[in-house]
Amino acid sequence: MNNFLVFQSDFGLADGAVSAMEGVSFGVSKDLNVRHLTHEIGRYNIFDASYRLFQTIKYWPEGTVFVSVVDPGVGSNRLSIVAKTVTGQYVVTPDNGTLTHVAEFVGLEEVRQIDETINRLKDSNASYTFHGRDVYAYTGARLASNTITYEQVGPVIDKDSIKRLRLFKTIFEDESVTGQIDILDVRYGSLWTSITIDEFKKLNIDYGELANIHIQCGEKESCDLNIVYGRSFADVSIGSPILYMNSVNHMAVAINQGSFAEAHKIGVGNPWTITIKRLTK
Amino acid sequence: MNNFLVFQSDFGLADGAVSAMEGVSFGVSKDLNVRHLTHEIGRYNIFDASYRLFQTIKYWPEGTVFVSVVDPGVGSNRLSIVAKTVTGQYVVTPDNGTLTHVAEFVGLEEVRQIDETINRLKDSNASYTFHGRDVYAYTGARLASNTITYEQVGPVIDKDSIKRLRLFKTIFEDESVTGQIDILDVRYGSLWTSITIDEFKKLNIDYGELANIHIQCGEKESCDLNIVYGRSFADVSIGSPILYMNSVNHMAVAINQGSFAEAHKIGVGNPWTITIKRLTK
Amino acid sequence: MNNFLVFQSDFGLADGAVSAMEGVSFGVSKDLNVRHLTHEIGRYNIFDASYRLFQTIKYWPEGTVFVSVVDPGVGSNRLSIVAKTVTGQYVVTPDNGTLTHVAEFVGLEEVRQIDETINRLKDSNASYTFHGRDVYAYTGARLASNTITYEQVGPVIDKDSIKRLRLFKTIFEDESVTGQIDILDVRYGSLWTSITIDEFKKLNIDYGELANIHIQCGEKESCDLNIVYGRSFADVSIGSPILYMNSVNHMAVAINQGSFAEAHKIGVGNPWTITIKRLTK
Repeated sequence: MNNFLVFQSDFGLADGAVSAMEGVSFGVSKDLNVRHLTHEIGRYNIFDASYRLFQTIKYWPEGTVFVSVVDPGVGSNRLSIVAKTVTGQYVVTPDNGTLTHVAEFVGLEEVRQIDETINRLKDSNASYTFHGRDVYAYTGARLASNTITYEQVGPVIDKDSIKRLRLFKTIFEDESVTGQIDILDVRYGSLWTSITIDEFKKLNIDYGELANIHIQCGEKESCDLNIVYGRSFADVSIGSPILYMNSVNHMAVAINQGSFAEAHKIGVGNPWTITIKRLTK
Repeated sequence: MNNFLVFQSDFGLADGAVSAMEGVSFGVSKDLNVRHLTHEIGRYNIFDASYRLFQTIKYWPEGTVFVSVVDPGVGSNRLSIVAKTVTGQYVVTPDNGTLTHVAEFVGLEEVRQIDETINRLKDSNASYTFHGRDVYAYTGARLASNTITYEQVGPVIDKDSIKRLRLFKTIFEDESVTGQIDILDVRYGSLWTSITIDEFKKLNIDYGELANIHIQCGEKESCDLNIVYGRSFADVSIGSPILYMNSVNHMAVAINQGSFAEAHKIGVGNPWTITIKRLTK
Repeated sequence: MNNFLVFQSDFGLADGAVSAMEGVSFGVSKDLNVRHLTHEIGRYNIFDASYRLFQTIKYWPEGTVFVSVVDPGVGSNRLSIVAKTVTGQYVVTPDNGTLTHVAEFVGLEEVRQIDETINRLKDSNASYTFHGRDVYAYTGARLASNTITYEQVGPVIDKDSIKRLRLFKTIFEDESVTGQIDILDVRYGSLWTSITIDEFKKLNIDYGELANIHIQCGEKESCDLNIVYGRSFADVSIGSPILYMNSVNHMAVAINQGSFAEAHKIGVGNPWTITIKRLTK
């Protein structure tokens, strides 16, 4: 039986690139179940590609093959690889940091380098700018359809040798925890932080209590507020801020039916940090 | 045999939310045929969610399960429900008005409240902000795959007790009919009104005849024009306005290859009204 | 066995139009494999619709049915047709130029006019503005599901009589070749030209050599640069321009991790031309 083949890229959906990858996949096997995570990753934004895989991969069945193509180094000597997670999914990707969050929060069992002398679309050797179609979609489709085994992808490489982005290391101080603003809940402008619920719980703040939120961009303070810790947006009135656990079990900050990011002009990634502090009772 | 599972939301496609809902669905059954109505409903715009269901539902086979997640009240005490239409489709949704147009123009046979003690993704009880994934996708997938029967969704509730948005009631006066500007044909800027073709026909205006169009925002006049009633855009020259019946059998106003909404700065919803008047011959 | 049914339009994905076309298709056969090329073709942009078909069609299996609905002339006397390519795919489309690139670069075997007295969604005769749903999706679905044969679409028409857009004819002068800026690689701002790799090769420029690029908008010069001819973006440093062969074997100009179109304010289509010139060694 075929496995799911799930695509992600920074290509957008406005031209024919994604459809060419689909066509190549169905050329391998008409019975593939091809799905799409997102194609609206920001241009060259490897961090976001890595994060969106982490956000979704655990909900997909064992055997699912993800193909992630955010590939600013296409045509350079960066490797093309396939990782197998400890939970049995596969990720086909350039070796450029895209596996960072999955390696950190899910775990990799093994990584293989794609042997492009075998795993490459027929007659595509003169094409140097679209490995998403010629190598990744083609290899992912062959793997998902069991045309090749995982072993036939190519040789094993040391899984600790793959490129990983540096993740912010949570800082604990007396009564406070500091992390990074990782990413936006795009449509709503909520801030998703690198602080996990388990890290936050060390502060012993209960639902309904206030916490102090301090957000900085490098040395510059952007926002300092006392806001309530709640379960969900509806715990506060419309227009009010709330601290909550998001859908990937990290701490997040939102405004009920508003955009925290816009209201306070907050950005994401290095050097945007957030400190959550317990108020003295 | 599996039924279609069709998603709608205001999540956008830029992050992993929709893919997480898909993954959960395929975790229920790998054989589901998952489709997407749209995920670009404006943030929290329940009226548009309701309208887009009405626009499409009749074209889908009996047994199709729609999952619509525009859910500003997530975490409040709003109910989670599944409605069965008189034509045999299902809609899984928060009880917040999303069923307004389907109830009015298609008709509901029965409504059940989702019993979340049973119909909730395993191990998701600590998650309070993403019922789209944890409750709605999961329940919709179980219903579409016949893992549960419709009766197993939960107890029947009074279908007249569900929340419905107030729809504009068409006003007939001598030789004129007044309705609301309901929604835009987004890409083209055409105005879709609440006036049905049957209501319009009472004015006895023939194809090719002029009608007077008067658009107001509350008390303020925005546009007063005599324009031709035609079958399709090509009945007038490029850049000219036209009154026509749209693809859901309501009256609409457009500019051939232009945007009526932009040209006359027209908005949608309350308090935007339109009066169509028969000209004296 | 069913064939693939692939949709393209300028409808966008924000409303219910695409989903209505899907629903109609599944009403014809629940077993159809419905896919989407893109729905973000610019409004009424027949050139781009034609180009995106050419960009993707060759990767899809024989028997695939494309339905392309960029249809500013809906309701006029333009014909509705189905073309069969020499490689065995079908394109269902209004006869308005959408087949230009496929006819030129792939080749048409035969064209038939849709007999709308037979091939039209039941009870849709009063609908004049959405042939995408009522005629094209319906006919495409019947053809892809083998509900009708290709011959049952309607009568053969002269394939040389269909509407074709005028394509720029490449100009060769001593040591230079001139073409048109056809289209953007949307997300990245790279310029895709009408000059094929075979035409470019007559200049005998090798990888790593500089070439002169001269871009004009009508009589007005927009950009005159000597840039390197490389295999892929990574052949030049970040921020540097490069001349390369794109994924459809035409010549293109990009900035590595930048936007050439934005940097030099370049547009597409007539009257934007580009001359590539060999530098004297």
